[in-house]
Amino acid sequence: MIVPRLIERKREGGRIVEPEWDELIATYAAGKVPDYQMSALLMAIYFRGMDRGETSALTDAMIQSGGQLELSHLKSARIDKHSTGGVGDKVSLILAPLIASLGVAVPMMSGRGLGHTGGTLDKLESIPGFRTNLSLDEAARQVEKIGCALIGQTKEIAPADRKLYALRDATATVEVIPLIAASIMSKKLAEGLTGLVLDVKQGSGAFIKDPDRAQKLARTMIDLGADRGCPVVALMTAMDRPLGFACGNALEVKESIDSLRGDGPDDLMGVTYALGAEMLVLASVASNASDAWRMMSESISSGRALEKFGEIVEAQGGDARIVDDYGILPSAAETAEFAADRDGSVLEIAPRAVGHGIISLRGGRRTMEDRIDPSVGFVITAKPGDRVSRGDVLATIHAIDEAGIREGKRVLSDAISIGDGDARSLPLVSHRISSEGMAVWTSPVPD
Amino acid sequence: MIVPRLIERKREGGRIVEPEWDELIATYAAGKVPDYQMSALLMAIYFRGMDRGETSALTDAMIQSGGQLELSHLKSARIDKHSTGGVGDKVSLILAPLIASLGVAVPMMSGRGLGHTGGTLDKLESIPGFRTNLSLDEAARQVEKIGCALIGQTKEIAPADRKLYALRDATATVEVIPLIAASIMSKKLAEGLTGLVLDVKQGSGAFIKDPDRAQKLARTMIDLGADRGCPVVALMTAMDRPLGFACGNALEVKESIDSLRGDGPDDLMGVTYALGAEMLVLASVASNASDAWRMMSESISSGRALEKFGEIVEAQGGDARIVDDYGILPSAAETAEFAADRDGSVLEIAPRAVGHGIISLRGGRRTMEDRIDPSVGFVITAKPGDRVSRGDVLATIHAIDEAGIREGKRVLSDAISIGDGDARSLPLVSHRISSEGMAVWTSPVPD
Repeated sequence: MIVPRLIERKREGGRIVEPEWDELIATYAAGKVPDYQMSALLMAIYFRGMDRGETSALTDAMIQSGGQLELSHLKSARIDKHSTGGVGDKVSLILAPLIASLGVAVPMMSGRGLGHTGGTLDKLESIPGFRTNLSLDEAARQVEKIGCALIGQTKEIAPADRKLYALRDATATVEVIPLIAASIMSKKLAEGLTGLVLDVKQGSGAFIKDPDRAQKLARTMIDLGADRGCPVVALMTAMDRPLGFACGNALEVKESIDSLRGDGPDDLMGVTYALGAEMLVLASVASNASDAWRMMSESISSGRALEKFGEIVEAQGGDARIVDDYGILPSAAETAEFAADRDGSVLEIAPRAVGHGIISLRGGRRTMEDRIDPSVGFVITAKPGDRVSRGDVLATIHAIDEAGIREGKRVLSDAISIGDGDARSLPLVSHRISSEGMAVWTSPVPD
Repeated sequence: MIVPRLIERKREGGRIVEPEWDELIATYAAGKVPDYQMSALLMAIYFRGMDRGETSALTDAMIQSGGQLELSHLKSARIDKHSTGGVGDKVSLILAPLIASLGVAVPMMSGRGLGHTGGTLDKLESIPGFRTNLSLDEAARQVEKIGCALIGQTKEIAPADRKLYALRDATATVEVIPLIAASIMSKKLAEGLTGLVLDVKQGSGAFIKDPDRAQKLARTMIDLGADRGCPVVALMTAMDRPLGFACGNALEVKESIDSLRGDGPDDLMGVTYALGAEMLVLASVASNASDAWRMMSESISSGRALEKFGEIVEAQGGDARIVDDYGILPSAAETAEFAADRDGSVLEIAPRAVGHGIISLRGGRRTMEDRIDPSVGFVITAKPGDRVSRGDVLATIHAIDEAGIREGKRVLSDAISIGDGDARSLPLVSHRISSEGMAVWTSPVPD
């Protein structure tokens, strides 16, 4: 393998074949291919793309660069959910215990906040004592024992992907569909899944704003799963407004516990149930979406889902009293209400503005080294389409000091538009994509 | 300056502006921009190109990264010639003393053999004692004193270009017209020239085989010169066959000395005079090409050109007896004649096959670390279009041993085609390109 010849071939629109990907990625992970050759190759891939076979070979090579979650001896199905990232998206915190409470193993690997979006790991770590950095062995034992583990990407999983991702970030080669798909799927497939559900966000708050590109990403991941015998189903969901009310780490944990108690916001529960139904059907635990919907509803009303959340918190070193008393979560020093300054309709609640606002309140990172304050954020109870009158409370701001409250007001003034027209919102769940193709999504339950 | 943002902008087809190039190249030369970011940028440039302003800014920034030949106090014009590289191309060895003998300062910076082409430095170093690694100061003093210095790219000149060139070589980003042009011109302009003549090779032995691309390279260099007040003229010359008879380092020095004595092959002298005329007119030493032609012819017939060659050899530590006795050059242990194996026309003498053949006889490098034997090579006296009979001697092979002679015969059997048709050769000099545009070249003297 002569690396400049591989780069040249890709540059001219040719293919890199499977044994070449294997050698290239193994040699790169071992530090024997210099970053400067890899970044030139990545930029050539930006312009020339990769076909399904190449993307699959790259994914395999990245999986092989590290360890895998050894769960193949389990009788139960092993299903995970992945979201392309949003604001107020605490679905994982509800979905993982909910689905695990129904007998499906949920080995869930999550990330930290990125750009304007929050990260499940950051949210979980606002629970006092909660550890997300489990080893692969610890995670496997916990999944065996209680059916679920909520972990970060350990150093053992797909180290080549970690190295490659850091390089892409520094060389303007992040936004390449096959590279994004291979990066996500190398980590997910290393969990030893029997099925995966994707939440592909669309709208102004999504990382990929162009719906065609978002669908292409979903299809690429579906193909990668199919190539390794792991069925993948994707739902296209709305990220033109925050999901649920709470936006901010500890605030979202509270809303997740409320949701597991049966008091979740409608939109949040709608997305959670839609994704959960796909997981339960993939696991063959439910025969169709209506059955799945009923099972999830029963698990929540019976308290089993919340109980499972408590088990997970306890198993990962967190304070399990949180299930009954979320007063033990960090709370912000200052809170203030934010009211409408005119009569009218809520036309927009811009998720990027809200997400960047959390960062400016110190609830998110500008660089990976930043420490965050988990207590801050917004609880925005208004939704696009609501009729409001001047003085109505739209949101509560949680900040570390008075300056933060002022900043929060500035953020919400920018983010929330009130006017005379009609709000135009995306459907909460618009389409379902599987290896059979894309179809308009319809709810299995009456509104 | 945030480098990933620059890469992203270029990737999207945008421009990098002059202060950004200055900072980027200075920071890169100082080792503070990593190679992996620069190689991603280079690949983005491969796909997106650079406009005239960007190419000019990059060239300036590379010049500024090092020292320059300080010759601005000289009264005489300072003119150099650059060739895009060929086989048998020993024009520099004849042209430099010839033009210097007519009162023009010729600070000539040359390179080593690259791929199938030979390098002027390798040829000069076959002269016992000849030093090409002069410092900028030494070179400037020598040009002041005798009007010419024949040197390599010192470490002082355009160090950013050296670093960038090595990176391009390792990342499949060599073949980019504006990067090639900026690389050549940063070195040439650092010589403090008042004019530059380009020999742009075309045909199967040229690095850039596509004539449109070769012309584009010439025009880019002409623009870069114009932007810095250094007029540049390019001649398109034939490299579909070797130039002259001798191919190989010491053999080419002998042919150069023969040429300076007035016994040069017609094609070699034709190219030399055509380029020399442009140099003399740029220097305002001749008012037109016919005058220039006459002056060069007189300098050769009077012995002044050869005398100047001797001065240069002596000034650079070489054995000046070479002018009268080239028996002191290294000569090959074995020589053998190569004869036609049939009657017919010489249809082709493939320069790439001859150039690679010199390497396989150990007269050229496969890697920059290889040592070369200067004595080996070919003297091919046949030319395309010659009528030959079976048994006629076409060439002499010079090799280190009998195995080399066998290899040389294999090489020439491949390189030389004899057949019944007509040879189709490119005109020796086809076009002249200047800032006024391109025109068909016509000889100022009758054939």
